[in-house]
Amino acid sequence: MEESGPSTRCRIMATASEFFHEIGYQKTTVADIARALKMSPANVYRFFDSKKAINEAVLERLIGEVEALVAGIADRSGLSPTERLVTAIEALHRHSMDRYERFPRIHEMVEAAMGESWEVCRHHVAGITAVFERIVREGIAAGEFEAEDPAVAAGCIHVGIIRYTHPLLVGQAMLPPVPSLDAMIAYLLRGLAPRKG
Amino acid sequence: MEESGPSTRCRIMATASEFFHEIGYQKTTVADIARALKMSPANVYRFFDSKKAINEAVLERLIGEVEALVAGIADRSGLSPTERLVTAIEALHRHSMDRYERFPRIHEMVEAAMGESWEVCRHHVAGITAVFERIVREGIAAGEFEAEDPAVAAGCIHVGIIRYTHPLLVGQAMLPPVPSLDAMIAYLLRGLAPRKG
Repeated sequence: MEESGPSTRCRIMATASEFFHEIGYQKTTVADIARALKMSPANVYRFFDSKKAINEAVLERLIGEVEALVAGIADRSGLSPTERLVTAIEALHRHSMDRYERFPRIHEMVEAAMGESWEVCRHHVAGITAVFERIVREGIAAGEFEAEDPAVAAGCIHVGIIRYTHPLLVGQAMLPPVPSLDAMIAYLLRGLAPRKG
Repeated sequence: MEESGPSTRCRIMATASEFFHEIGYQKTTVADIARALKMSPANVYRFFDSKKAINEAVLERLIGEVEALVAGIADRSGLSPTERLVTAIEALHRHSMDRYERFPRIHEMVEAAMGESWEVCRHHVAGITAVFERIVREGIAAGEFEAEDPAVAAGCIHVGIIRYTHPLLVGQAMLPPVPSLDAMIAYLLRGLAPRKG
């Protein structure tokens, strides 16, 4: 039984993830997940304390994918720090838009996490901001950027693009006219531009 | 009967506003509002087609207050354009925080509007952005700011502060560590700084 632990855990997460994406976090019950896996709810609870805990595990995995995407761009050789920052922001936006368009109910997972799984949210924001900070530092070293405190600058850039990347806001195409992402990136890059004179 | 129209409409809005603030938009019914006013639901429907229409009227009034607040700051003599922009952003943040702290359920009104009352949202964002644009233009005239397109710059600043002012995000104090509002304002102001050399 011990050996089957990790794989049962994975199967629960995979099935829960499908339910959360298709039916939504709110309407999915632990009983639904158990039934789809042909196991008892009690068995699901052996692996996860609560639906909240399953959501956290599912989100951690999704978040891991996004972080790997952004970190991969930060590592890409042949791109300048400016290009890497722009590409990373565009990738975050596109990833968030794609996911929202395919699974409009995904916002329920995010809302639940924002209400009760702060550690997951904090961890995610800190992870992406850390990648931005790395790019900012490399841009400073290369003479492309200037920032008194690279960590703060990275935090400002990350907060500044929230309208284009946050799962609760990105899908609001019907909502207010916002500047294009290109215009917003250009504006934020001005904040990193070396001062002359 | 005709004369009592505006005042009945106002009483409905005032009562609905109390319910939405205290009990929340979701749980409030038109019947609740009618009962509190000692009138029939049918009479409420004479003035508003739906709960959605009441919410829109209530939000329009709240939004009008915020816009007046910001426009008042933009008009304030004795402050430089930079000071007016900073003061306006700080006032928006404080107003949003205060309201959220006093009425945590207010986000339900906003969520409902984001889901079905886009015109209200668009109108609000355009209104505040227009005030920012006015300050940016005055700053350019005064030589304090530089921006190729003042409307775009104003839009970027407004989008850039969303984490600190949007009703769905401002209350998330438990959520990720974000730069202080001061740091964010400083970053955004760099985007308006005249280029030398």
